[in-house]
Amino acid sequence: MTQTIAQLGEQGLLKLVQSFCPTEIVGDDAAVLATQPGASIVVTTDVLVDSVHFSDQTTPPHSAGWRAIAANLSDLAAMGAMPTGITVGLGLPPDTPVPWVESLYQGMSDCLSQFGGAIVGGDVVRSPVRTIAITAFGQVSPANVIQRSAAKVGDVILVTGPHGLSRAGLECLLKADTTLPDAGTWRKAHQYPQPRFDVSGQCRNFRVAGMDSSDGFADAVLQICRSSQVGATITHLPIPVTLLNHPQATDWTLYGGEDFELVLCLAPGQAQQLLTQFPGAMIVGQIIAGSQVQVATPNAAVITLSLDAGFRHFAS
Amino acid sequence: MTQTIAQLGEQGLLKLVQSFCPTEIVGDDAAVLATQPGASIVVTTDVLVDSVHFSDQTTPPHSAGWRAIAANLSDLAAMGAMPTGITVGLGLPPDTPVPWVESLYQGMSDCLSQFGGAIVGGDVVRSPVRTIAITAFGQVSPANVIQRSAAKVGDVILVTGPHGLSRAGLECLLKADTTLPDAGTWRKAHQYPQPRFDVSGQCRNFRVAGMDSSDGFADAVLQICRSSQVGATITHLPIPVTLLNHPQATDWTLYGGEDFELVLCLAPGQAQQLLTQFPGAMIVGQIIAGSQVQVATPNAAVITLSLDAGFRHFAS
Repeated sequence: MTQTIAQLGEQGLLKLVQSFCPTEIVGDDAAVLATQPGASIVVTTDVLVDSVHFSDQTTPPHSAGWRAIAANLSDLAAMGAMPTGITVGLGLPPDTPVPWVESLYQGMSDCLSQFGGAIVGGDVVRSPVRTIAITAFGQVSPANVIQRSAAKVGDVILVTGPHGLSRAGLECLLKADTTLPDAGTWRKAHQYPQPRFDVSGQCRNFRVAGMDSSDGFADAVLQICRSSQVGATITHLPIPVTLLNHPQATDWTLYGGEDFELVLCLAPGQAQQLLTQFPGAMIVGQIIAGSQVQVATPNAAVITLSLDAGFRHFAS
Repeated sequence: MTQTIAQLGEQGLLKLVQSFCPTEIVGDDAAVLATQPGASIVVTTDVLVDSVHFSDQTTPPHSAGWRAIAANLSDLAAMGAMPTGITVGLGLPPDTPVPWVESLYQGMSDCLSQFGGAIVGGDVVRSPVRTIAITAFGQVSPANVIQRSAAKVGDVILVTGPHGLSRAGLECLLKADTTLPDAGTWRKAHQYPQPRFDVSGQCRNFRVAGMDSSDGFADAVLQICRSSQVGATITHLPIPVTLLNHPQATDWTLYGGEDFELVLCLAPGQAQQLLTQFPGAMIVGQIIAGSQVQVATPNAAVITLSLDAGFRHFAS
């Protein structure tokens, strides 16, 4: 029979969790981390709840762990920062199987190994619902901070990759549909997103505005425009090639979310440099005066975006 | 009728939450914080779950908010650090009353106003159970870090105040007992603990080992001894005067927890200096060679402490 964490006991659980942390840092009331001279600290946090943000059906524990970390690292990338450390707060029912917890931490650890940073602290508590609270810390030189509010009229809008694949993957997982030709790729996009430090690291000498597209491409463009007090026109929706003939393609690309790409606004010449380095990136539109965000869709209709059309987290 | 957060909507909820944050920091993918030259960053995190760590019966939302912050600030104080910022991850059922959320944030904000730091980021998500995930970070000069592992044979053990009041307060609240002479003081000790930055700030030029007593006085002494590879003898249990005749006094003082005092090990002369400045502090014992922690109790029996006797979070 599979051991539960109630059977493992608190000391055993702490030992398990600490095996994923650098031994020189954990074990005191708090972790102590050195800072680079002149660097600013960047902090971001996310709470993920079983059956709301992850589930064994769509994200086995290894993937749930990877995604929890990747989502927070993506926020750091979106600020131009590099990861330093992560804290993990975990709420677990006593009947949670020990292998579930091990696999969750392995997924987090694998993501950190690839992109940098380490688990430097945490808390494990009893809860009626599996809950993962992540706080990620990074460092950035103040001159290199990427903010939403710096977009200027005349900037082009560049995305680091197509949008909608994660939502398509979720659909395959929810319907357990393996017949689609690209279901494997789509599922991987949902389960193992990649924070785009590769691109953010190349923007250090650019004046660039931007954010990540965790809440969808449309939301990112709208948030940047609202912060920068500008409008935008989207001439080319970043629909993934393998979704082009799918009836939900436009919707998923605009509102699907969780692709964790970057949406960047910058001068056309600098955007061209990024396109050369990152063939998956594409220019999708430009920043204009005003406050409207208009999108040309594949069926030639032009739609005007609004912040109200995103996912409503609290609708009951 | 009281408005719920489902009725308020996500944008309204975010606006409410952001009204408690400094406007220059929030609103981007992550918060950016300046660091002091040469300082190390100290990070700590806690997850609190409704009916496990707080409840409307024992901690109305203002107190739940205060305690959530105070517990994390106490970890910073225990490391010798001063608070910089806090992130707040909140999981809420859609039927949560809006005034509950307002009062929770007001309690957090009041605690931060008194002790320093600000809410610099957060996340609000749907969850079947009210959940509060706090991460606090502070700064400390590397030379002033207080660690558990620095206790030396010959040190005295000083506590910054009596232990057991919080547990006594919890008992009054659970039993709604207002007949006890000091029930008001006890309840306040449970609902509004005070992180001891006043004392930790006076230790900067001392060689001091220590931690806070969030998991109880006995746990703190044991953790310090285990980390420092020493033993201890406790000659004077820090039983609060108003609990002296209570049948649970010894138990609550040893294992009650959540008093959020500091347990410090330092040279006798330096301990005397602290006693002069802080009349509520007291010397309770000393560090000895070996690995045993023995406690003289009021009834003259000597007991040997073990890490297994603390609160078992996952026992089902």
